[in-house]
Amino acid sequence: MSPRLEALLKRFEEGDQRALARLITLIENRAPERNAVIERIYEKTGQGHIIGITGPPGAGKSTLVNVLIGKYRAQGKRVAVLAIDPSSPFSGGAVLGDRVRMTDHYRDPGVYIRSISSRGSHGGLSRAAREIVKLLDAFGHEVIIIETVGVGQTELAIMDLADTTVVVTVPEGGDAVQVMKAGLNEIADIFVVNKADREGADRIKAELELNVHLRPAGGWRPAVVMTQASADKGVDKLVEMASKHREYLDAHRDPVREANRRTHELVEVVSGELEQRATRSLRTGGAEKLVVGVRDGRINPYSAARKLLEDPAALGELLAANNNSD
Amino acid sequence: MSPRLEALLKRFEEGDQRALARLITLIENRAPERNAVIERIYEKTGQGHIIGITGPPGAGKSTLVNVLIGKYRAQGKRVAVLAIDPSSPFSGGAVLGDRVRMTDHYRDPGVYIRSISSRGSHGGLSRAAREIVKLLDAFGHEVIIIETVGVGQTELAIMDLADTTVVVTVPEGGDAVQVMKAGLNEIADIFVVNKADREGADRIKAELELNVHLRPAGGWRPAVVMTQASADKGVDKLVEMASKHREYLDAHRDPVREANRRTHELVEVVSGELEQRATRSLRTGGAEKLVVGVRDGRINPYSAARKLLEDPAALGELLAANNNSD
Repeated sequence: MSPRLEALLKRFEEGDQRALARLITLIENRAPERNAVIERIYEKTGQGHIIGITGPPGAGKSTLVNVLIGKYRAQGKRVAVLAIDPSSPFSGGAVLGDRVRMTDHYRDPGVYIRSISSRGSHGGLSRAAREIVKLLDAFGHEVIIIETVGVGQTELAIMDLADTTVVVTVPEGGDAVQVMKAGLNEIADIFVVNKADREGADRIKAELELNVHLRPAGGWRPAVVMTQASADKGVDKLVEMASKHREYLDAHRDPVREANRRTHELVEVVSGELEQRATRSLRTGGAEKLVVGVRDGRINPYSAARKLLEDPAALGELLAANNNSD
Repeated sequence: MSPRLEALLKRFEEGDQRALARLITLIENRAPERNAVIERIYEKTGQGHIIGITGPPGAGKSTLVNVLIGKYRAQGKRVAVLAIDPSSPFSGGAVLGDRVRMTDHYRDPGVYIRSISSRGSHGGLSRAAREIVKLLDAFGHEVIIIETVGVGQTELAIMDLADTTVVVTVPEGGDAVQVMKAGLNEIADIFVVNKADREGADRIKAELELNVHLRPAGGWRPAVVMTQASADKGVDKLVEMASKHREYLDAHRDPVREANRRTHELVEVVSGELEQRATRSLRTGGAEKLVVGVRDGRINPYSAARKLLEDPAALGELLAANNNSD
């Protein structure tokens, strides 16, 4: 570890938010040092309550998050928000506006807000999100809120990181509920019907409750909470239910699940690193003959890949750890 | 290659649609034989015109695709459709209904329609889609249509596979256009305003045309095509523009871009295979001591990963090609 990174980690450990921000950037850019960073802070993770908030565009998620921050701050808790900004222009309108709305808490040192774009990080987004959440956790945040627009494969996968997943909908989404039954109910620990003063709120509540009722017996049964986030109505109830869900999780720890989660993490780190090493090597002169053949069109990429993968020596060279030439 | 797979490939080469379907399933399941399959058929690819169709839910994409199929069939062309079904219930309503609408062509042997779910394939979706398109291409389809709901990171990445990307919108999406300017215009080769009989169609057309006009000079300038797919209006114009775009591509082949694309393919195949080998090994007894330590919580996953990655011998064993024990 370089002295510079060492110094940065020390500042992180002393509670310097700028050091946190720089480490997040390092993760976001998939810098080679990222595994060393997470290894170092790993033992300090596992304390924060990770709350995922998802739902369709326009459900008022950001307003809800803004009010939630205030509630947790009133309890004296330190709060972090990781907002995944949509990669697609279709999925939501006022992206910038959303972030601005959260700046009620901009000057509060007990609140850290970061948004990362889902654009560009091509496949690495859920890994990056997992590691950023670890940083936010190890930094000492007692509540970590991850906000996504629940519209794509990657965006939904990120909800796996949460202890407690909150699915936000609105009365207008009436027909969406039909579809939600097919899928989103599987990931929801709490349903929120926001803008609950609007017509149709009671109907959607009844539908969601019926849906919860139809779940197999045993296990946590999601609550349906009615809110009007913009008027600060119902959000206390959401905080209460989130806390109950966390107590439930604490009382029902599943050692097998936790062991699997750790193994999964090992697999992800190893395979992610191998992927990155191979990519880096091939782009910077590794397996040169084959790569040139592929570039020239003399050998097709699949044949070249097979040759490389069948040759342990070539593979070993390609994956050597010191291949950080770029 | 097993005699069974050999026989399957032979039937594929003879034009047996059931063999095509089975090979696609094999790709979809990320079976270990998939690279050998693509290597075998690779030289036959590169003939079909790959058309990507994307846009928000409710824009009428599936109806449009259905009409498009008819147009290409009238030209005597064989057509394949690969529809990526949304992973999220938010992103679209009548998923099943959509597929059913396309079954106008169900009994036509010159049309092959397949939908794959974006759910579950966790990260592997764009690789799978790339390889399935190759199969559809090598099978002899002259037009290959990929349809996605353009809402998530992965779904948009799939549009990279297309020669010609068609972005479909509707007059109701008026404010979405503001956002489209920020992003989707970058990937569109052709804009379609569907349901063009509705109010606001001319305004959205003008906005899109202004947007196209503001692109830097040089290169292809996207057309804006007005359609009413359900009444078969405007779709001939879309076919004409798609064909013009393909001619443009043929006339402006960029050898550097093509070389980069092939290299990228090599990198993807190699890194994907390494990822899969590592995952498989770690889940089936490879690096047993470390994995057990991680499961038991005696060593954290990042430390275990570092130890493994620093040890060339352990890594070599983990990645041995014959580790297909599961």
